Amino acid sequence: MNNSPKKLRIGIAGLGTVGRVVYEILQKDRELIASRTNSIIEVVAVSAKNPKDFVDNKIKFYSNPLEMADDKNIDVIVELIGGIDVAKDLILQSLKNSKKIVTANKALLAQHGAEIAQSIEKYQGVILYEASVAGANPIIKAFREGFSANEIKEIYAILNGTCNFILTKMLDEKRDYSLTLKEAQDLGYAEVDPTFDVEGIDTAHKIAILSSLACATLPNFNVTHIEGISKLSIQDLSIAFELGYKIKLLGIFKKFDNEIQQSVYPALILKDEKIAQVDGSYNSILTLGNNFEFNMMIGRGAGGLTTGSAVVADLIDIANNRENNLLFNAKFTDLKTVKIADLSHRLGKYFLSFVISKDHANEKNFIEKYFNNIFKIEKIIYKKIDENDFLCALITNQIIEKKLSETIANIDYSQIKDFKFIRVEETKF
Amino acid sequence: MNNSPKKLRIGIAGLGTVGRVVYEILQKDRELIASRTNSIIEVVAVSAKNPKDFVDNKIKFYSNPLEMADDKNIDVIVELIGGIDVAKDLILQSLKNSKKIVTANKALLAQHGAEIAQSIEKYQGVILYEASVAGANPIIKAFREGFSANEIKEIYAILNGTCNFILTKMLDEKRDYSLTLKEAQDLGYAEVDPTFDVEGIDTAHKIAILSSLACATLPNFNVTHIEGISKLSIQDLSIAFELGYKIKLLGIFKKFDNEIQQSVYPALILKDEKIAQVDGSYNSILTLGNNFEFNMMIGRGAGGLTTGSAVVADLIDIANNRENNLLFNAKFTDLKTVKIADLSHRLGKYFLSFVISKDHANEKNFIEKYFNNIFKIEKIIYKKIDENDFLCALITNQIIEKKLSETIANIDYSQIKDFKFIRVEETKF
Repeated sequence: MNNSPKKLRIGIAGLGTVGRVVYEILQKDRELIASRTNSIIEVVAVSAKNPKDFVDNKIKFYSNPLEMADDKNIDVIVELIGGIDVAKDLILQSLKNSKKIVTANKALLAQHGAEIAQSIEKYQGVILYEASVAGANPIIKAFREGFSANEIKEIYAILNGTCNFILTKMLDEKRDYSLTLKEAQDLGYAEVDPTFDVEGIDTAHKIAILSSLACATLPNFNVTHIEGISKLSIQDLSIAFELGYKIKLLGIFKKFDNEIQQSVYPALILKDEKIAQVDGSYNSILTLGNNFEFNMMIGRGAGGLTTGSAVVADLIDIANNRENNLLFNAKFTDLKTVKIADLSHRLGKYFLSFVISKDHANEKNFIEKYFNNIFKIEKIIYKKIDENDFLCALITNQIIEKKLSETIANIDYSQIKDFKFIRVEETKF
Repeated sequence: MNNSPKKLRIGIAGLGTVGRVVYEILQKDRELIASRTNSIIEVVAVSAKNPKDFVDNKIKFYSNPLEMADDKNIDVIVELIGGIDVAKDLILQSLKNSKKIVTANKALLAQHGAEIAQSIEKYQGVILYEASVAGANPIIKAFREGFSANEIKEIYAILNGTCNFILTKMLDEKRDYSLTLKEAQDLGYAEVDPTFDVEGIDTAHKIAILSSLACATLPNFNVTHIEGISKLSIQDLSIAFELGYKIKLLGIFKKFDNEIQQSVYPALILKDEKIAQVDGSYNSILTLGNNFEFNMMIGRGAGGLTTGSAVVADLIDIANNRENNLLFNAKFTDLKTVKIADLSHRLGKYFLSFVISKDHANEKNFIEKYFNNIFKIEKIIYKKIDENDFLCALITNQIIEKKLSETIANIDYSQIKDFKFIRVEETKF
């Protein structure tokens, strides 16, 4: 046996929370990590905007990450800069220089997957990206390896802890959206500009990656149907709960015969279904496959130590030569194309809520007739608002979305107001 | 690019349900699997007791699996014979002949891990064994790879679908143990001789493997404290439920400063905790780590397609050279030893139930005094049985088990009868 273990020389680009924590885990858990790799993972360089961000004289400092990509003494670049431009240049340059990559950058993979997959093919490179989706859940590894003997049929996933925290708090504490968002910001769960999280963009990046792995396609972020949570009210959440449902922001993938659904929207899920029970800032992924029936994972999605430990697990995989150069489950030249279904074709149940007059609330079959009898009512609740008005909330039977939206577009709004519809998902578990 | 993909030549030993399903998945999902491996996984030989068990003239048949282990045209042996003797000989012989192994055999790994790990070291061999624990949950891969940047602190796991099915049915349908076991047998969930499942032995094999991966030790099956579910009554489950708890058979691992707990017993878990909500024949593993906080997985634990797809995923890993020759997360010579704590040292809450007279039920502090004031009562329920007797069930505060069991051993059984105690676990999630 060789008694001097190999060294894997790491350069960390980006010294925000995650970058610092990766460095910290590699120090504090050095013994554990060494025992699991039989090699030493050593940070030899870092890069950040400001040299004052990092003080360790044994480690080389680059203010320009692209220069670090040319450093011949580095085996692996850990890209934690985030965003698109610099991160992409860094990764492409590093691949060209035969360096392996570990990244947490879902936006980059979801939006520029083609360029990166092509470069991986060209240079026979490796990118591991466990930290990009759902932190404590090794879901990227599962989609690339553990689930590999399954055709993935459906995915229902809570992929943004900020949104899940906000929706949970709004329902539990009956506090409105903006106050709850403020609390999430104060706790560090939400950014100062929360758009990426609350408008569903972050979730869309992640479901685009999972969908691409499920089908061996390039990530199709641009065609993802995206709705966020900023238009949801306490009333929506409360009345859905009374009807037996929770509302969650879901990343959804469904495989049909010749096309797929890939979308992000708030959806009602029966309280009894497992994913409806994942509250707070946690993530969860429910995956249905053709052989194993399903798998569900639950865990924290973000946070320094959670994300940092996913990065370090990828480094350990590289140190152990457990690599995978099929970035999206196929070689670049073998990646398929797949048609994304328009949601107008969706067959499903819907939650409708609106305000109607007392008289109409008391009129038999008023609602069915009002919506041209296009659906049957599975459940309905009326809430008295004042002497004249009632809030009505109902769950339809399964109908085609197009039929519903065309009807909604043409109804006479003189007799109902504050109309709203939200999709209902049936996750089967 | 090389246009003729490599072939990985497989020999399947054992043609029970799982063996047949592995063969079936490799046929029916051939295209999917080929796309994920860039190589062809081909079954070239099988072995079973009876040649009539399998008819495919292109595939070589061995009635003696050890002869198959000597076949130079086989790259990977899939061991699905189960049990110890033949399976062990087959694996050792195959390793000696430089064949890679995929197995679902938890009993063998848990009981003869030392011999196998030593042989892997000697021949630089590879054994993948995802199918041995919790089927649809890639938990072995997680413990060897995905969670590798975490020191595993605690595991609470439902690892036997048969037991979970029985406990769920007993509570939901108020049917007694033997009737429910009979139903599980009729449904094919339980064996004709259910001892391995219901007495906790199967769970003990699995927690021994997870515990060994958590600590990088040899599996310590022989010292596992094991209690099964056969002594639980409908009354235990119902009254625990009234107190706010479900009873689950758990595989438990806890890491203390200088020792670990590794045990199997039925435990009360608060209804609100996620693992208490995993009902029916499903498995679930809740893993607490020092960096990621926790991860929880849920999915079917057994069944042909579930187990078969875990076996095939391992084959795909081998076809992609994603191997791992640290069988229990360290080289044989680096495996540690760890002290298994005696449960008498356990600090935790306890569920006690017993029958007392009406007078004692009405006597203030009777119970506390009766048990020498060694615990405080957190919750208590009395149920009238008849004019004279009451059933009393309570939850204690946290106490040392030794104190409780010594007290129990010495109390005067003239005043209480039908005494029973079950541990309460607090999973924190």
